[in-house]
Amino acid sequence: MAVNLHIPQQSEIHPVPGVEVGTAEAGIRKAGRKDLTVFRLAEGTSVAGVFTTNRFRAAPVQVSERHLAAAQGIRALVINTGNANAGTGASGLQAAEQTCRVLAAQLGIAAEQVLPFSTGVILEPLPVDRLTAALPAAVQNLAPNNWFDAACGIMTTDTQPKISSQRLVLDDATVTITGISKGAGMIRPNMATMLGFLATDAGIAPDLLHDMTRQIAERSFNRITVDGDTSTNDSFIIMATGQSGVQVQSTNDPLYKRLFEALAAVALELAQKIVRDAEGATKFITVRVEEAASSQEALQVAYAVAQSPLVKTAFYASDPNLGRILCAIGYAGINDLDVSATRLWLGDTLVASEGGRHPHYVEEDGQRVMQDAEILVRIALGRGNHQETVYTCDFSHEYVSINADYRS
Amino acid sequence: MAVNLHIPQQSEIHPVPGVEVGTAEAGIRKAGRKDLTVFRLAEGTSVAGVFTTNRFRAAPVQVSERHLAAAQGIRALVINTGNANAGTGASGLQAAEQTCRVLAAQLGIAAEQVLPFSTGVILEPLPVDRLTAALPAAVQNLAPNNWFDAACGIMTTDTQPKISSQRLVLDDATVTITGISKGAGMIRPNMATMLGFLATDAGIAPDLLHDMTRQIAERSFNRITVDGDTSTNDSFIIMATGQSGVQVQSTNDPLYKRLFEALAAVALELAQKIVRDAEGATKFITVRVEEAASSQEALQVAYAVAQSPLVKTAFYASDPNLGRILCAIGYAGINDLDVSATRLWLGDTLVASEGGRHPHYVEEDGQRVMQDAEILVRIALGRGNHQETVYTCDFSHEYVSINADYRS
Repeated sequence: MAVNLHIPQQSEIHPVPGVEVGTAEAGIRKAGRKDLTVFRLAEGTSVAGVFTTNRFRAAPVQVSERHLAAAQGIRALVINTGNANAGTGASGLQAAEQTCRVLAAQLGIAAEQVLPFSTGVILEPLPVDRLTAALPAAVQNLAPNNWFDAACGIMTTDTQPKISSQRLVLDDATVTITGISKGAGMIRPNMATMLGFLATDAGIAPDLLHDMTRQIAERSFNRITVDGDTSTNDSFIIMATGQSGVQVQSTNDPLYKRLFEALAAVALELAQKIVRDAEGATKFITVRVEEAASSQEALQVAYAVAQSPLVKTAFYASDPNLGRILCAIGYAGINDLDVSATRLWLGDTLVASEGGRHPHYVEEDGQRVMQDAEILVRIALGRGNHQETVYTCDFSHEYVSINADYRS
Repeated sequence: MAVNLHIPQQSEIHPVPGVEVGTAEAGIRKAGRKDLTVFRLAEGTSVAGVFTTNRFRAAPVQVSERHLAAAQGIRALVINTGNANAGTGASGLQAAEQTCRVLAAQLGIAAEQVLPFSTGVILEPLPVDRLTAALPAAVQNLAPNNWFDAACGIMTTDTQPKISSQRLVLDDATVTITGISKGAGMIRPNMATMLGFLATDAGIAPDLLHDMTRQIAERSFNRITVDGDTSTNDSFIIMATGQSGVQVQSTNDPLYKRLFEALAAVALELAQKIVRDAEGATKFITVRVEEAASSQEALQVAYAVAQSPLVKTAFYASDPNLGRILCAIGYAGINDLDVSATRLWLGDTLVASEGGRHPHYVEEDGQRVMQDAEILVRIALGRGNHQETVYTCDFSHEYVSINADYRS
């Protein structure tokens, strides 16, 4: 059950000139589902990515980083679900490289021009023969309009496909931005989380795109948390084909800011969709920390609250047991925090101040806010001018069921 | 449902000469249960404590720290359940102080000689009038043999009372150590976690007892984790009455080491009982990290594994989805970790090496170990000679139920 997750109609999903998408059934883990996705990119497309900080980086992450560094011009992406190809040692790297070689041969490009991605179970060998056997069908299927199938094709425990698409007019030209993401558990900040693929037909200089991708990840996929687990496979990619004719070469370009904001908005929507469809989620919770001495400490407090199982189970129960939020603020690691300067709001209701319950707070007000499916927790620290926002969900029986049963 | 939690018979619970215990029904939160406990200590008893690092320290924690610092000789403890008196600002401090004054008057001692403790719901005013009205009954009830009632009297979501008692012969004298603890959720290291009260009739010099209490907390209550939440009220107290005639004045004392180890063993047993009775626990899990470059990094890895909801739900399901453990090791924050040098055992079974699944590992072996109620996860990092062990439990539907329903 996803929380207010909008699934666009086909007419709302705009193809991106220069990008074709194809899917196929490879039977990686289960038969009869599209578990293999290929992107083909027009020549001249700029591609940049950010990847997980997990030390057990999956084989495809390592190969993707190497191929991006080779800078031969990325022309294709290949993504499988059902197996993460992580914790697979040297043979996992060989499997990822073989996947790239086989696809490259079919597309008439070099293996270094392919980026591989995998998602699914860790510590099991990738069935690379089944995967490569299905590549011709995915290539055959390549078409500009297959974004919806791709969004379905990269799902694991996701209950809904995640797609966002937007058009804007820049310099008299129409620029399209379309993206997909997946991820529902093992989601935590401090690196691009889950898989996210964003394409635009704006042209963006490679170095600039690299910087933009990092900054956009920081404002979107690095601001969500479901369970505090940072996956081995997290990857976020932006592809810029340039086919709209609009070109952005530097941050001084007059079009830069609007393009950046539009890309960031689509990325944030895709990131939030992951939280809306998080494993077992029944509520979408925004945690905003204000008046912090630094962004770092604002994030520390926000994550302490957003990741507390006690806070999250209280939201699940719609129980305004708000002392649990104060408790999480208190253990966030700010050693000189003045609790009497800290204030806590639930929606518009001031709950706590002066180190205790606000005199005008009555439980009915808290109860009313807790019933909503979308809840804002606002915390002011009284220490400075920095603020940060993170997005999370509640913690339900269903989370336990999904993760206890995931492999069986 | 607690995991292999031994509840001693009355004959196994040894009273501690110099310590009397009394309980009463104050109706703090619910009627008809003993929710108030008083300890009376003989003159000359040394008392030391360690307290939560949470910045929203509860009022009784602040008052206890002040009274210990006043060094007038602690003669009584008063503990209520049902209300944490935390997040209660100035009026909470007044309530804790009033509790001490009223009890002190009844015992003929000074208010500074009383340590108050509270546990229960945060952010609600302590019903101090009901509490103080029940103090005479608790004082009336004071007797050396009431440890079991006290262990019941301090419970919140605990399903079982937690008591450990031991006798040893030191220097031809019999020394008794008896303790109780409580706590089942909001349990996390980095400070004495939950409530723990340990008494011995050995005599220990106050400064020495202070150091011993810190070291023992570090080896016991600071090595357990249930849900990663550090409570506002955590306190661990050791009382040494000296009535056995055995005196230990410094670490050079020939009896020191045996007494320290005996106290530490009882504290570890009490700490582990908290994990065994943790909210929803069905398994007791020991995570040992070896070959670390420092204790700090051994703990970082151990806690990353012990606190991962994905790892804990896999244990609940008895599913050897062990890639989740590698994943947690990978995000523990050791930036130069060499994954190919890392090895993972489940019980005696070598699961992973060389960055991937061990060639001889078969899932049946993992499956067999996962069925047990007590599981050892052993991780070797190949970086040095330090090792650390932490204790945790699995993560079940029941945890969510308990924490979603706790207040209602």
